[in-house]
Amino acid sequence: MLSGMRMSDIIEKKRNGGQLQTSEIDFFIKGYTNDKIPDYQVSALLMVIYYQGMNKQEVADLTNAMVESGDTIDLTPIKGKKVDKHSTGGVGDKTSFIVAPLVAYMGIPVAKMSGRGLGHTGGTIDKLESIEGFNAELNREQFLHNVNKYKIAIISQSGNLTPADKKLYALRDVTATVDSIPLIASSIMSKKIASGADAIVLDVKTGSGAFMKSIEEAKELAKTMVDIGKSLNKKTVAIISDMNQPLGYEIGNANEVKEAIEVLKGKKVDDLRKVSLAIASHMTILGGIFKDYSTAYKELEKVLDSGLALETFKSFIQAQGGNPDIVDNPSKLPQSKYKYEIKSPKKGFISEIEAQTIGRSAMLLGAGRKTKDEPIDHSAGITLTKKIGDKVDAGEIIALLQSNIQDVHDSIEILSKAINISDKPVKEISMVYDIID
Amino acid sequence: MLSGMRMSDIIEKKRNGGQLQTSEIDFFIKGYTNDKIPDYQVSALLMVIYYQGMNKQEVADLTNAMVESGDTIDLTPIKGKKVDKHSTGGVGDKTSFIVAPLVAYMGIPVAKMSGRGLGHTGGTIDKLESIEGFNAELNREQFLHNVNKYKIAIISQSGNLTPADKKLYALRDVTATVDSIPLIASSIMSKKIASGADAIVLDVKTGSGAFMKSIEEAKELAKTMVDIGKSLNKKTVAIISDMNQPLGYEIGNANEVKEAIEVLKGKKVDDLRKVSLAIASHMTILGGIFKDYSTAYKELEKVLDSGLALETFKSFIQAQGGNPDIVDNPSKLPQSKYKYEIKSPKKGFISEIEAQTIGRSAMLLGAGRKTKDEPIDHSAGITLTKKIGDKVDAGEIIALLQSNIQDVHDSIEILSKAINISDKPVKEISMVYDIID
Repeated sequence: MLSGMRMSDIIEKKRNGGQLQTSEIDFFIKGYTNDKIPDYQVSALLMVIYYQGMNKQEVADLTNAMVESGDTIDLTPIKGKKVDKHSTGGVGDKTSFIVAPLVAYMGIPVAKMSGRGLGHTGGTIDKLESIEGFNAELNREQFLHNVNKYKIAIISQSGNLTPADKKLYALRDVTATVDSIPLIASSIMSKKIASGADAIVLDVKTGSGAFMKSIEEAKELAKTMVDIGKSLNKKTVAIISDMNQPLGYEIGNANEVKEAIEVLKGKKVDDLRKVSLAIASHMTILGGIFKDYSTAYKELEKVLDSGLALETFKSFIQAQGGNPDIVDNPSKLPQSKYKYEIKSPKKGFISEIEAQTIGRSAMLLGAGRKTKDEPIDHSAGITLTKKIGDKVDAGEIIALLQSNIQDVHDSIEILSKAINISDKPVKEISMVYDIID
Repeated sequence: MLSGMRMSDIIEKKRNGGQLQTSEIDFFIKGYTNDKIPDYQVSALLMVIYYQGMNKQEVADLTNAMVESGDTIDLTPIKGKKVDKHSTGGVGDKTSFIVAPLVAYMGIPVAKMSGRGLGHTGGTIDKLESIEGFNAELNREQFLHNVNKYKIAIISQSGNLTPADKKLYALRDVTATVDSIPLIASSIMSKKIASGADAIVLDVKTGSGAFMKSIEEAKELAKTMVDIGKSLNKKTVAIISDMNQPLGYEIGNANEVKEAIEVLKGKKVDDLRKVSLAIASHMTILGGIFKDYSTAYKELEKVLDSGLALETFKSFIQAQGGNPDIVDNPSKLPQSKYKYEIKSPKKGFISEIEAQTIGRSAMLLGAGRKTKDEPIDHSAGITLTKKIGDKVDAGEIIALLQSNIQDVHDSIEILSKAINISDKPVKEISMVYDIID
């Protein structure tokens, strides 16, 4: 701890519009991680950051200090450029299961650490655990071995990565300081950098179902993260993609694995394919496989259509103890006891499929958890049959619900309200709005 | 505690520019007083208030909630309208010792609770305790008895008054949330109201030696407090007075008592008299003695010149166990072992007597305390011989230092730098800038 510095002076300086020095940010993050600076001073500073923002240097310093607050993963034993991806979160987002085998097939090693999670469905690890036998708890040697041999390993975050971020996040959650772009950006980037990525592709969601409601906010967040990457020598590219409706048709854990497999088999789930291909294209460019976006996109599209990446996915599953039969026979994924059909009350065009509400409905079916220790029902979920812009007849099925809970009255009610039908034709939604690099 | 309310929602609402309801402010203050709401949420809200401010209703609600957080003093057994005064603090401010006997002589009961204090000199109680035998620890019966009989009692704050304010102040001190006008205003007003005042006269200082550097800020603080008084049915008037140089010539504890006695004897210490008469005039008007300011001022000036209020002061000292001889023979006040003279380095006009620096010099001489448990040297202090605008010759004494510390090199050095001399004539400073009611 640097002598002479006082947290109250740092708060006041930033409060008055001053720029924090690297040493001041280090003092704050180290002191907080070591419990030398109390929560009440940190929450005051977080609120100051909420109002004042942070410039490029400050947010890079904050990210770096959080990276250095704990362990970092050394991926140098893995050959090749390690390109990680991160999505800011949305409903039905199963792009990782498509993108990872796709870029791995192209020769980019995927050494991914993911989380379980709170929310409408589980996180990446929960989804993978819907595959019988899948083991996300590899040790370091197994992890490195699998990446080198099968080109993919996805494991549960372990070790003491970015403890400062964990403490800060818990505090932000109860002090109304979550929705601050520098705090969000540094949190995401510190985790990716501590996980050992050489380069990062970000999928920043925007729309009613995303944290960033407007494209402008999403761009600002993307730009902040890309700048952090630049400052810390981790080449970063971000796409801005739509989250006004769920991505693809499936929402849940097994549901999403199933849909990803279908896309890997060549199924044309338009929005999901477009976002996955955009992410994978940037990853392969950052990984040095392709030089330009349109070539990358076309080549990856061919691979996807050919079904070649499916084998990579299968060997990855098998290598981590999962039953590979689910790839050929998705009915071997967990099946729920009860199924319900939701029918359209009228003829028309789908004008709205409110992602956040659909997510809440899925959670009530058992697909997500509200608190850390709740179990997840891997078989619970929602299958949409329509997307915004689609025609629908009165009485036609618009969604299927799967659950092990018998009375899902609430889920049905909120789901029905989330899907709106217009008498007039509705325009399809554009998927990728922008690229920030 | 009201069910269903969450502190994080209150922070977010205010953060987004919403207005807090009375029930929300009550929830926050009650919860914090009872240790149900943690410091880290409160510091976040305080920082939001720093940025967003508070409207009239909110700041009145906050004040009222702080009053209700603890005991309140019932002064109804005292006959007459109880008019209290408060100064926002400055260097050399001994107006209470002049104003209290003056208005008491005019028939206004002075039932005053005061503090010791941190800073360049002690607080009102410390200053009074420089009088041999003075007892500031009267119980309630003695306190009420003395006010009814001698018209004045000044005691040390006791009981559990405004515990919410005490907790909040300690937190603000370490979270850079001290200098927020609604927080300052509600803190001051809650203490005055809890102390049982029917009406309040505020002396808001402005200038380099005051917390409010500009007249505009001082006016805003004054207006906020006057509005709180209006909302809570305690008629409040504020004067804005100068604190670009110390008030009067004496700074210290015994020093200030001595100068107050001189003014009560009729000595024309111009700035100190003006501010004291302005405060006393408003107090007598609020107390129903006079109808208009100019009549009040003229009548009080006559009383001061006649020395009649001195007897009231003497009987008050005696009633609380103090040696009344100090009034006729101020040399019976504590005397320091060492005295030092500061001489002018050149001929000219006094252009600056930086109040804050003079205060720091007095503290180093022993007149103030830095931490709660330090002792105070009642005899230590500074006597100025000049005020801004005065002529001075080279080698003429401009200040005298008193201390029981032999080596006061630092005090002398900073004091010398605090007094500046100009070659050209300098305008005198106006004392009372404005009246807010």
